[in-house]
Amino acid sequence: MDFDLARRLAQENGTKILLFVMDGLGGLPHPDTGRTELETAYTPRLDMIAKDSACGMTVPVAPGVTPGSGPGHLALFGYDPLAFNIGRGALEAAGIDFPLEPSDVAARGNFCTVDGEGLITDRRAGRITTELCAEIVSELRQIQVPGLQLFVEPVRDHRFVLVLRGEGLSAAVSDTDPQAEGAKPLPAKAAALEGEATAALVRQFVENSQAVLQDKHPANALLLRGFAKRPDWPSMPEVFKLRPAAVAHYPMYRGLAKLVGMEALPVGPQLEDSVATLRENWGRFDYFFVHYKYTDTAGEDGDFDRKVAKLEEVDASINSLLELEADVLMVAGDHSTPAVMAAHSWHPVPFMMRAKNIRADDCDQFSETALLQGSLGTFPAKEALPLALAQAGRLKKYGA
Amino acid sequence: MDFDLARRLAQENGTKILLFVMDGLGGLPHPDTGRTELETAYTPRLDMIAKDSACGMTVPVAPGVTPGSGPGHLALFGYDPLAFNIGRGALEAAGIDFPLEPSDVAARGNFCTVDGEGLITDRRAGRITTELCAEIVSELRQIQVPGLQLFVEPVRDHRFVLVLRGEGLSAAVSDTDPQAEGAKPLPAKAAALEGEATAALVRQFVENSQAVLQDKHPANALLLRGFAKRPDWPSMPEVFKLRPAAVAHYPMYRGLAKLVGMEALPVGPQLEDSVATLRENWGRFDYFFVHYKYTDTAGEDGDFDRKVAKLEEVDASINSLLELEADVLMVAGDHSTPAVMAAHSWHPVPFMMRAKNIRADDCDQFSETALLQGSLGTFPAKEALPLALAQAGRLKKYGA
Repeated sequence: MDFDLARRLAQENGTKILLFVMDGLGGLPHPDTGRTELETAYTPRLDMIAKDSACGMTVPVAPGVTPGSGPGHLALFGYDPLAFNIGRGALEAAGIDFPLEPSDVAARGNFCTVDGEGLITDRRAGRITTELCAEIVSELRQIQVPGLQLFVEPVRDHRFVLVLRGEGLSAAVSDTDPQAEGAKPLPAKAAALEGEATAALVRQFVENSQAVLQDKHPANALLLRGFAKRPDWPSMPEVFKLRPAAVAHYPMYRGLAKLVGMEALPVGPQLEDSVATLRENWGRFDYFFVHYKYTDTAGEDGDFDRKVAKLEEVDASINSLLELEADVLMVAGDHSTPAVMAAHSWHPVPFMMRAKNIRADDCDQFSETALLQGSLGTFPAKEALPLALAQAGRLKKYGA
Repeated sequence: MDFDLARRLAQENGTKILLFVMDGLGGLPHPDTGRTELETAYTPRLDMIAKDSACGMTVPVAPGVTPGSGPGHLALFGYDPLAFNIGRGALEAAGIDFPLEPSDVAARGNFCTVDGEGLITDRRAGRITTELCAEIVSELRQIQVPGLQLFVEPVRDHRFVLVLRGEGLSAAVSDTDPQAEGAKPLPAKAAALEGEATAALVRQFVENSQAVLQDKHPANALLLRGFAKRPDWPSMPEVFKLRPAAVAHYPMYRGLAKLVGMEALPVGPQLEDSVATLRENWGRFDYFFVHYKYTDTAGEDGDFDRKVAKLEEVDASINSLLELEADVLMVAGDHSTPAVMAAHSWHPVPFMMRAKNIRADDCDQFSETALLQGSLGTFPAKEALPLALAQAGRLKKYGA
């Protein structure tokens, strides 16, 4: 829904909307059985919800487009992921609560391992611990680049964020990460004319980092990508008249949620932690985004059985979400991560919505094949929020 | 279909297209039976048509958006209801055949009842008779506002139209109708800077009306809303090369039809009257919009059984529409009005199209659940007309 239309139609009414996202939810059939992860998992409670729900499949970005985690979630939040882009650097900075100023430029950093000839042998430096990452980062903070204030912040494992603060900085700087092993880190270059000066400053930082990193094997080099400024987006409270909260453990999802105006609540890593956080904060908000990561992780690892197990884990706990009695419950995914592909994919994603006055359908199974027969059909993920608002009575009538 | 494309592709060929609209057609399950109004009604003839038709569900405006009567119909006429907006005042004026000039500003008026303190006790003044409305209106015509020519026209029951004619008028005037009882009528205010002068004139009219109305209890005050100018839209004859006629009894639908270039034929209130009008005029036109109001009225009243009865009434008469042997027959609704909600809703609306060369499907039941399996799927209502034109052989090939 166009934001101007949303601003015109949205109204507050005290109802509660709960969006439960299983990351990488959609799958593909196992070659031995012909059944997807969801079709293999024993999920009687999810199937029961499907029976009372309007069912369908979401297209996160556009047909054939494999979404990153950002676009897949933005669509579910009601933001057109083709109109609202975010650079990785800004997303990572938001995820660790770094207060980016509008003129700052942020980049996602990886420590990596290079050999004697400077060729990358491990893009993730053997996934060093977060503690070691923080130690190295504190040494990198000593680096001085004239005309620039530098911030280096650890994230998790081998990942960090670099923030440049100064006058006239541009995000038009190319990645130094060649995204391949056996290659050398690339020099930062201007991606457009206005990026020349900033690229030179980045090259200076990288050069100075070598003295710090040379004896830090396996983290003896660094890679930068996704140079970006903080996006300035309309917020969910302003556009949709919601008081939204994010119940997400992983920094990136928290960061993303904050960029659309959600409050990111403190929460532990497990689904039961999410439920506890929801219970504590139920009165303070009217829209809750709950993120479950492990379906995606299993899919990315190509571990079909573990993805099945994670789906069954969700099914076992889902009733605790139902007990909150949200006026609208959505069970969704940000994209598909079929274990047989061990990667994100473009395939549509299982979706169901339970609410009063829902037009339920004959679908009584939460799986890729069964949901195709649902009343929502295969539809753009960005339409899920307007539908939820409608079901919650939060959209006024349009036109005379 | 974009109008420029329609202008390029549309051609005349002597075929006839019949659009039969059951107002508020779509429903929701009855809590006791789990069956919608259409699923409850005995409609063997409609089901028979479904068997030979391409079936689907229409989305009138956008997912989650509840349409007013205007947008719901405009979409079925091939007009994007988000691009073609109409104010209530202009729609009401068109409905009573008032010849609005381009610079006129029209408002929808209600007589209402206020108590001794000026608080509204009945927004509809006990639905006074149309005759009484006409009497009071004729007294209001005596009101003089310097610099303004005023027209006050009765519509039906407690409803009238106010038209302001003069130099430099603006429709940027806020409603005086607070849309709630227990509140006072609001003063007309400028909704934008250019509306200041017009708002002042409206306030003067309202003030002068008090002397006329004070002894007219229950119609002892008036409410104005939907200030609007006449829209200047491309017509169906110009865009789609059709000679279109409207067979609608209710003023608002006639008005709307005229705004898109239809001729509004004289017709009585019942379906048999519509059939008689169609027969008489079958040779003169090639597109007929037939409007059936009572499904919506029953839905709005929350009367599930009466809506079922009205659907059965349509079923009993539908063969007389078939006997006209239109080349394309569409059976549609402008929006859903589920009796369980007693209001318009955002839910998709049953639709079927029968024609030569149609790609019929397995759907042999005209109901919300069965139609989901139709070959048209769930699709924007504005695509119905282009599909009908195609089935009628009225769209040329696109491209070499």
